Amino acid sequence: MTSVGIFGAGQLGRMLALAGYPLGLRFRFFDPQASPPAAALGTHVRADYDDLDAVARFAGGVDVVTFEFEDVPLAAVGAAADRVPVHPAPPVLAALQDRWDERQLLRRVGLPFAPCAPAAAAAEVSAALDQVGLPAVIKRRRSGYDGRGQRVVRSRAAALRAWHELGAAPVIVEALQRFRRELSIIGVRGRDGAVRIYPLAENHHHRGILRRSLAPAAAGAVLQATARRYVRRLLQALDYVGALTVELFEVDGGLLVNELAPRVHNSGHWTIEGAETSQFENHLRAVLGLPLGDTRPRGAAAMVNLIGAPPALPAVLGVDGVHLHLYDKPARPQRKLGHVTVYAADRRRLVPRLAAVERLIGGPPGRRTLHP
Amino acid sequence: MTSVGIFGAGQLGRMLALAGYPLGLRFRFFDPQASPPAAALGTHVRADYDDLDAVARFAGGVDVVTFEFEDVPLAAVGAAADRVPVHPAPPVLAALQDRWDERQLLRRVGLPFAPCAPAAAAAEVSAALDQVGLPAVIKRRRSGYDGRGQRVVRSRAAALRAWHELGAAPVIVEALQRFRRELSIIGVRGRDGAVRIYPLAENHHHRGILRRSLAPAAAGAVLQATARRYVRRLLQALDYVGALTVELFEVDGGLLVNELAPRVHNSGHWTIEGAETSQFENHLRAVLGLPLGDTRPRGAAAMVNLIGAPPALPAVLGVDGVHLHLYDKPARPQRKLGHVTVYAADRRRLVPRLAAVERLIGGPPGRRTLHP
Repeated sequence: MTSVGIFGAGQLGRMLALAGYPLGLRFRFFDPQASPPAAALGTHVRADYDDLDAVARFAGGVDVVTFEFEDVPLAAVGAAADRVPVHPAPPVLAALQDRWDERQLLRRVGLPFAPCAPAAAAAEVSAALDQVGLPAVIKRRRSGYDGRGQRVVRSRAAALRAWHELGAAPVIVEALQRFRRELSIIGVRGRDGAVRIYPLAENHHHRGILRRSLAPAAAGAVLQATARRYVRRLLQALDYVGALTVELFEVDGGLLVNELAPRVHNSGHWTIEGAETSQFENHLRAVLGLPLGDTRPRGAAAMVNLIGAPPALPAVLGVDGVHLHLYDKPARPQRKLGHVTVYAADRRRLVPRLAAVERLIGGPPGRRTLHP
Repeated sequence: MTSVGIFGAGQLGRMLALAGYPLGLRFRFFDPQASPPAAALGTHVRADYDDLDAVARFAGGVDVVTFEFEDVPLAAVGAAADRVPVHPAPPVLAALQDRWDERQLLRRVGLPFAPCAPAAAAAEVSAALDQVGLPAVIKRRRSGYDGRGQRVVRSRAAALRAWHELGAAPVIVEALQRFRRELSIIGVRGRDGAVRIYPLAENHHHRGILRRSLAPAAAGAVLQATARRYVRRLLQALDYVGALTVELFEVDGGLLVNELAPRVHNSGHWTIEGAETSQFENHLRAVLGLPLGDTRPRGAAAMVNLIGAPPALPAVLGVDGVHLHLYDKPARPQRKLGHVTVYAADRRRLVPRLAAVERLIGGPPGRRTLHP
């Protein structure tokens, strides 16, 4: 019986396990929290990440280790890697834990991104603004997700305030981009170097949190091909094994890379029902050295996050094409409690179903229209 | 947190749980075996079915109880029903545990089946043969599945031998049918009486065990409508809640009912990838009083059972459209270890994929051709 160890037992670990049982896998999770979402689906090793003895116990009985979030402390990942293969590999994870290192990687690989500069002192923030201009975004180099750890600033004074609010930690200062829309693409690379890439998803955020993804995104062949080229280049440059998510801005003249996530991603949840093989199954296939599955979409899908309050279940399930995914988390404001995937044979049929669902659970506030 | 109790922790319980976690459910299984397939996916109450205290403990903390096989002893089901709702209801289960009672139900509801007669003594076997003729099938009234508990006989002497081999138990003696093919249909009825019905599946058996299902079956509108009418009539007559499977023979002039199974069914496994909502999710939605999901097919699917020996995984997963489902069971001759669903956009594209998979894992022996 093949056994997979996962750092983190949140919803991503939960969905990895749900995808993995049909492959005959068993799961062990490392997570310091009590009763995390994945705990019911495997063995839960509850310990802090700096407890390397616990990490050794965790890694001891499994065939491969992976992770559901990119901020796993490198010492823990290293302790696991002393015992079993870890995918994506520790050096890859290290390269993607720091936003400035990530930008260096993009530069090396030749992918476009917004002008930016690092800063670790007030004077450096000022110097960085000279370079990138205003408005700008100040982002902590480490440990940011769902819009945390970053601030949009429109003046030098605001920039310095923001930097202090972010803990006066090392940051990058980035020119704020005017973009048409936010897109993302997920590529998966196997141990043998084979690559499979999902189509682009279009993502709608509100207050820094993903609210809705539409997939496949309405996007021409050139845009799709460009995005595919970007993710493929990264996968190869990193000798990557597993799923890699590239968040993109569509701007006049093409695509800018916004962030990389070395893992399955919220903007890929639609693949459970909307693609031939889900991102979760393909990540597992990759880290286990199995052939990758077909990433082609089936029909049209929309993913809507359930944030902060549980939805009225019977009403939501009463809409045809709705697939519910609850994470077994206590409700809390701004917390992702689950998501709904709405499926239809094509985008035209999807629009009324999505509208019906969002009337029930609340979609992202207004401005975006759905172009069928 | 809603919790579901399931009698039986085999592969059907396992797939019910995998379908239920995304709905935010938790699972408890009652099963006398050590380490059954579903044990990793919930709490396992290990006890014999005649241990009614254990049944009471099992049913104590759950919101609803259901079962994955139709031979659950009625005393156990009754003990559970004293505490929580059980669906399908105990009287329905009782009616379908006995093949002769089942035939009486079919007669009452007006559905056609092969001529048959009950027998519980040698003289009655002889009298039954006078009625139904030869060749015939002798079937134990209780506890038969996968072709166990039945014998085809071509002479009176063979019939009496068969009856003794079957333990001289109460049987039915049935006229052996010449049929074109075996089909099945699964209907689901909610607590509110709403009914959703999957399309017909075409089933290929070998040595009494299902080897392959094709779904939707190539079948005209009249045949589909007839089958739908049959399952709907049964669901309504029984005031049924949950998934009900009707196995059918296609004969000159229409359909004969072969067997009923008051549960999710091997011939419905294709619904995981091939229908908008799986039979497992819909059974759970039904027993929990939630709205039923869309039962329409997506594309064309074939399900092939993995029997007796584990397949060469990497090769099988290398075929696009393949979805593997292992049950976490030790290998044993004639044992169902898992199944593979092969999916394609249509039947024409399905045929070569299915052929590729069956070259790797062995399909049912020859005679059937696939008509795309």
